[in-house]
Formats: sequence, C-alpha cells, structure tokens
Amino acid sequence: MPDARRFTSLVSALPASVPFVAPEALERRRGERLELRLGANESTFGPSPRALAAMRTELERASWYGDPESFELRSALSLHLGVPMEHMVIGSGIDDLLGLVVRTFLEPGSCAVTSQGAYPTFNYHVAGYGGHLETVPYRDDRNDVEALLDAARRHDARLIYLANPDNPTGSWHDPAAISALLDALPEQALLLLDEAYVEFAPTPLPFDPEDPRLVRLRTFSKAYGMAGARIGYAVATQRTIAAFDKVRLHFGVNRVAQAGALSALADRAFLEGVLEEVTWGREEYARLAASLGLTTLASATNFVAFDLGTPERARSVADGLLARRVFVRTSGGASLNRLVRVTVGTPAERRRFGHAFQSVLS
Amino acid sequence: MPDARRFTSLVSALPASVPFVAPEALERRRGERLELRLGANESTFGPSPRALAAMRTELERASWYGDPESFELRSALSLHLGVPMEHMVIGSGIDDLLGLVVRTFLEPGSCAVTSQGAYPTFNYHVAGYGGHLETVPYRDDRNDVEALLDAARRHDARLIYLANPDNPTGSWHDPAAISALLDALPEQALLLLDEAYVEFAPTPLPFDPEDPRLVRLRTFSKAYGMAGARIGYAVATQRTIAAFDKVRLHFGVNRVAQAGALSALADRAFLEGVLEEVTWGREEYARLAASLGLTTLASATNFVAFDLGTPERARSVADGLLARRVFVRTSGGASLNRLVRVTVGTPAERRRFGHAFQSVLS
Repeated sequence: MPDARRFTSLVSALPASVPFVAPEALERRRGERLELRLGANESTFGPSPRALAAMRTELERASWYGDPESFELRSALSLHLGVPMEHMVIGSGIDDLLGLVVRTFLEPGSCAVTSQGAYPTFNYHVAGYGGHLETVPYRDDRNDVEALLDAARRHDARLIYLANPDNPTGSWHDPAAISALLDALPEQALLLLDEAYVEFAPTPLPFDPEDPRLVRLRTFSKAYGMAGARIGYAVATQRTIAAFDKVRLHFGVNRVAQAGALSALADRAFLEGVLEEVTWGREEYARLAASLGLTTLASATNFVAFDLGTPERARSVADGLLARRVFVRTSGGASLNRLVRVTVGTPAERRRFGHAFQSVLS
Repeated sequence: MPDARRFTSLVSALPASVPFVAPEALERRRGERLELRLGANESTFGPSPRALAAMRTELERASWYGDPESFELRSALSLHLGVPMEHMVIGSGIDDLLGLVVRTFLEPGSCAVTSQGAYPTFNYHVAGYGGHLETVPYRDDRNDVEALLDAARRHDARLIYLANPDNPTGSWHDPAAISALLDALPEQALLLLDEAYVEFAPTPLPFDPEDPRLVRLRTFSKAYGMAGARIGYAVATQRTIAAFDKVRLHFGVNRVAQAGALSALADRAFLEGVLEEVTWGREEYARLAASLGLTTLASATNFVAFDLGTPERARSVADGLLARRVFVRTSGGASLNRLVRVTVGTPAERRRFGHAFQSVLS
C-alpha cells in the first residue's frame, strides 16, 4: 500500500543505527548463553542489599506511578552532594538525560563536539535531534581538551561532550583541568560532563550549582550496580532544570528504581566495598596484561582497556573471547580500536576472564 | 552571572507546564498522606502474583541493562496479538511512546488534532516537539470523530489523537466506527490510537499490521496493574517501527519491567479476575450515583466519570474528597469539567469512597 504519511524530514534523513549491540543480541545470534558479561561495565557486585530490599518492598506498590518529581530521591541527593534539590532532575539513566540535554540546548543544525570514539549514545542523540557532530582525536588515549575547545570555537559549538572519567579509555582529568576547560569555554558553549564513572575516580570538581557553563550527569548504573533499574540524575542551574522540566518525560522513571536509588545512596559501606574491590581488580588486570606481555591504560573506572597493539589483534581477541562465551567490547574510535575494554568483575569472574584471555592469546 | 548559553528557540518559547500534578505532590502540599488513591486510574488490584514473582526474581539481575530489543517480550506479544514482532516497539509506558510518535511524525510547525479535554500528555508532547495543536469539542461526552476528521482536513493535520476507550470520559467507539474513521482519514494524517484501557472494553478492532494509517499504543499500566514499572508498546508497520528505532531511547526500558510484563501477559486468569471485578465496580459506582441523585457516564475503562452538573460543583466535590484524603480528578476540558473521574478500586476501597462521596455531597 503506497503511503502518503510522512515521517519528519529529520527522521526520514536519518540512517538506521543503534548505539550498541546488546549482549542479549549476541546470545541470540550465537544461539548460546554468555558465561561472562564484561562488555557493558555493569557492576557484577550488584546493587546494595539495602537497595535490593527496598526494591523488593516497593514492588508491592508497582501499580502506582512513580513520583514525577522524584522528591524524596532529590532530597537525599541534595544532602549527599550539598546541592539544592531545585538544581537536579532525575531521568531513566544517563542515556535518557543525554537526550534531554541535546534536545534542550542543541538548536537543529548547530554543532556539538566530542572525541572520536567517545560514548556513542551522545552522538546518536545529536543526530536524532538534528545537530551536527564534530569530533577530535584522542591524544595519548585521553580526551584532548585543547582540541575539543578549538573545535568548539571553530564550529560555533553549543555543546561539548566530555566523559570524566572517560569511556572507553578509563582516563581521568583532575578538577583543575576541568576548571581550566570551563574558563576557556566559548561563551555560547555548554560543557556536558558525563560523570557515569565518577565514584571510581579521585575527588571530582566541587559542585557550583549556579555555574551556567555545565550540566553534570550521574547514574546509579555503575558503582551502585543498578543499570537494569534505569535511574540517573542531572545537576545544573535552576534555569536549566526549569527548561528540562518543560520537555522531559515526567512519568518516565519507574517507582522501584526511585526506591532502590534512595536506599543505595544511604548504604555508603556497600559502595566503599565495591570501590575497594574494583581497585584491586584493576590492579589484577594490569598484572594479567603484564604477564602476557601487554599493557593496560590507567583507569579511574570499573573497567580496564587492554592495549592489543593493532585493531586486527583487538578484534580477533574480542572474537576469540566471544567464542569462549566472554562478552567484552572493542572501540570504534580510530586511535582507540587497538583497545579491548573489560569490566572489572568479582574475583571469580576475573579468574575466569584471565583463563579465557590467556587461552585466546596463546 | 549573565549567560550566553541558549536553549533551543523551541524550548525557550515553551511555557513551563506539567501534564499532571501527582498525588505525591498533593500529599506534600497538604502535609498528610492520601487514604484513597483513585485519581490516576492505577489498578488497585496490583500486578498478577506471577508478574510480582518474576519481578522479584529479576531484581537479582538489576545490575544488568535490559535487552534494548525487548526480544522475549515482543515474542510473547506477537503470539498474544497475532502480530509479527517486527511490528512492535517497547517503551517506558504510553507517555514515552506518545512522545516517540509525535517526534517521528509531526514536522515542527505542523498540526495535530485532539479532543478538547483529552489526555494532556499528548498535547504536552505536541508542544514540546514544536507542533501546533487543534482541538475539537467532545459531543455528548464522546470523541466527535466527524469533528476530528473535519479539523484534520482543515488544518492539514499529520496526527489525529484518539483514546479508545476514552480518558477521561470512559466512552468507547466500536471497531466499525474506527474502521470508518480510518477510511475517511485524510491521506497525510496518521491516527494515533491510544488503547491504554483496551482490556476493559469490548472486542477491539482486529490488528492489521500492514495498515500504515495508524499506530496503536498499549500498556501494562492499567489492566495489568504495573504503572510504576513503566512499560508499554506500540504496534505499527515495519516501516514505522524502523523509523522509531532511529530515534528512540534504546536502553530506556527497565529490566524488571520487561520480566514482569512477560509474566503478566501469561497470567490470563488474573487479568480476567481484574476485568470482572472492574465490571462489578463500575456498576456499583453507577448505583452509588443514582442513590445520590447523580448520573455516571457509561465506561469501558477502569474508571467512572460522575456527572456533577456544573464545573463549580465538580471542583467543590473533588476538593471535598481531597480534604477527606481521597484523590480523584476533575477534567480540564470545557464540556467535561462537570465530571469527576474516579478509579474503580477494590471492594473495600469502593466502600470507603462511597462513604466519603456521600459525606461530601451531604
């Protein structure tokens, strides 16, 4: 049937694309279950037992919509971060919030800047909202702040995306570097600071909720082990939060996740335990690499990038791991495609990964 | 600090608005808990025990992202509806999917048509994506299909929104009426058929997944009692689903909801029990109204609209109920604002509502 109904010109012009192929899709393709799921930086330490208990209890109210203001969670975050709750909005994870920031700040046709090979979901949203993306190469496997700024100036960019700590390299810029970046930011540009992995890193930039130059995104998906619950938050000026409130999905966040996040935040001891274990695991991965004549990149996250030297070898190692039912990721970025990114799992998972990795390399 | 960073012209021009004030916000304003939550058509019968058990189990994998393709759920829905899974997409409830349809089909500046006083979240998304909204009055407390079509023709509308069964009236158009609407649809217009309450209604229009003239939205929030889990689906042509896949939030649906929906769908007996109870409850509400000299509108949903005669009386009754800690809703629509909409609760809740209602009216 010929069809006169038209998609918007923007949607019509977009290519089909997905930000990531999920491990479930790999399982369906291969017709077998994965044994080790270390490719999406999900926390294999899981949520805090207190968060799990809170979510179990909240299931009894699963027939009720969540509070669209996430009032209790924002109150708790306010105390936790020392930021008034009017400076926060809760979303269904950072992916959701990335879309919200792009939609709010990126006039169709205008430019956003990111590093080549950085988090693809930002790029997906830029395309999806009709923006134009400029990329700059990584430099020494780190985001090149000067190059980002330079590109922003040249292209009159409205948005600069920076993940800090970075994904997929695991690298980290200290607060002084972020401050310097903010001070050098072109007047029309907003820094979109993706802090998905911030809990694993050294002390971050202090919050200045009145600073209009940046929006900071955080999540319960990584250190808090709640990726499947889909909950994260943005911190920005009140003016920016009010703009988000004009267009965001008010009833999008699920009630069980709200309760879980609230309890996760209160369980400091569990979080500390995860962070400690991840620190050990990163060191273990570095030793594993060294024992095989390889290097790893220094990481301020819950994953480690193994340097395989060439894209071909990285690809072949990732494929070999998949054949052994171990899911990891390679990077698409030009200078990063020699890296294989592996989530730091539990001690047992690290042991199993070590065996599979050795077997693939030998 | 003066700020050169600009929101998009679209966001700048939007007024601050929220589709709904939530019951939690009412509780905070009043400083006390609500006793009866009958204003959001949440199912007080809750999710099926099998769905609850599945969600409890799935919490053990809360650290894993959900499958972005929702493959298992779409497979089950495919069997359930007799529609190939390539014709479906899963979203975080109908609110999310409404945004997706508007974003995909409504060119900024072009027109969408709805009834005056119909579901406000559709209007919210039309504004949020830069569309222009035309409304037509209800006629005899039902959507006026002829008027919707006429407005669509006059304004070259791209989208016609129709909730069937309707919210907030509870009215229902039978399959023949929907077929006739489709046949009379202007060539450039898509029918967005919101079937949130379809399980409570008589047999709906059969699915024709190849029909490009409509997108149908359904949810686990109402009859399945899972509003807090945030999960729903759209059925459309493969071409339309492929367009949605270009822009939708691929990792937006939470894993626990996916597992719950899958089990909810399999528990036919529980659903039948809810539908039976709701039928009784609707009759009970009609008798309650009659005993107080009032009428109700016929309902094919899990709520009943009580006709209070005037907007003033409807407002004052809703306020009186709230003072008794009973949450219901009035409608904003010009011809509908004499109605008070009350969710059909459990027998105990209906009894308590009856007492509060009588007390307010006397």
